Parts: sequence; C-alpha cells; structure tokens
Amino acid sequence: MNTLGRHILAEIYGCNSDILNNRILIERVMVESALEAGAEVREVAFHKFSPQGVSGVVVISESHLTIHTWPELGYAAVDVFTCGESVNPWDACNYLTEKLGAGHMTATEVKRGIFEEPVKVANL
Amino acid sequence: MNTLGRHILAEIYGCNSDILNNRILIERVMVESALEAGAEVREVAFHKFSPQGVSGVVVISESHLTIHTWPELGYAAVDVFTCGESVNPWDACNYLTEKLGAGHMTATEVKRGIFEEPVKVANL
Repeated sequence: MNTLGRHILAEIYGCNSDILNNRILIERVMVESALEAGAEVREVAFHKFSPQGVSGVVVISESHLTIHTWPELGYAAVDVFTCGESVNPWDACNYLTEKLGAGHMTATEVKRGIFEEPVKVANL
Repeated sequence: MNTLGRHILAEIYGCNSDILNNRILIERVMVESALEAGAEVREVAFHKFSPQGVSGVVVISESHLTIHTWPELGYAAVDVFTCGESVNPWDACNYLTEKLGAGHMTATEVKRGIFEEPVKVANL
C-alpha cells in the first residue's frame, strides 16, 4: 500500500481564549507551525468572525494547515495535511498546541491517497 | 454527546486530469460546491504547482473546503468541514465529485469538537 499524504485531525481543548480570538496571532502561529515542520508556505487566508472566533488556512507546497477556533469554549479544530517525506505533520501540530496554551490535545492521523502500486508523482 | 462540526474526508479517483490541472476551473467548482451546500464564502486561496497540480481552500462561515489534486494520478484529496445545522457537507462533496468527472469517490465523516454537555456558541 502506498500513500500520498498524512493528515492529522487535532482536537485542541483548554486553550487560551484571548489567543484563540486574535486573528493576527493565530495567523502568525499557524505560519510558524508550518515552518517548524519544514514546510514551504504558499498561500495564507484568515478570517475573524463576529462576535468571536478565527478561521484560517496556510496552503503549503506539501498540502495545508487549517484552524477554526471557538474562544468561548477554549477549543480549536486543527488539521495538518502533508505529503512527502521531508515534512512531519506532528511537528506542526505539537508546536501549535504549545503556542495555544492548550490544556490537552487529541489527534488522529489519516492516510490520504492510497494506491496499490507505488506512485510516481511530479512533486514528491 | 454534542459536536460542533462535521468533517468529510473524500478520496476522489479517476478524475479528469485536465480539470485537475486547471487552477481557475478548480477554484470555480470549489466555490460553487460551497454555495451548493448553502455555505457563505469568506476567503479563497488557490495555488498552481509546477509542473502540475492545484491546491486550494475556500474558507466559509461554517468552516472550510480544501482540495489537493494530482492530475497525473487522476486523484483529488478533498475535505469539507462544516459547522451548524444549515449546511450539509455531503451536498458540496457530491457536487464536486460530479464536476471533477470522477470515476469513484470514497469518503469518511468525522465528528469535530465533541463536548459532553450541550454547547452554546456565538456563531451556530
């Protein structure tokens, strides 16, 4: 079995609410998380909701990171999806969890793009 | 058990390679998919890779849609993450699968943001 990518779905609880509601700060730590994992940042898009909450994405050469925050619950839903061998998505996930001041994090890794035969692709 | 969101991870195979390699077209069908599900589009960021492949995201009020394409494999990894009761992520997923000219699609729905007590949040 050959897979193209690794996708971590992280449930991050007990976070600092002020951080979760700060779009600029969330954007910065998301980009830092991508860089921490050795990823190459391509596009960034973040949005601040009213009255609270931030959603955003960092598109990387190796796939993406996303976040959605609920400051009132101290909760963030985070995804880190990476392709190739050079980037470890757990590095980004762990870095981000620390920066959000989280109480606890649970995560699942899902394999994406499963092929029976070895795959030869242009960008890995 | 109360959950904030529904997250579909879709593996879409046997797609039309020309579509998968066309950034403008991929962006258009991703936005259309969001609208098809009744979502409100907030931010859009797409990137074309060299020599091939497209990555992109549509940030919606209800969370996000992402796509990564491998035209050489006819494969797209798609995520549709929605919160609230007004949007059905499967509508977006099914619409997109049709527009990519896919041979077959397999998908898993994951619950995100699980709380024991009913949650009262600002934006749902």
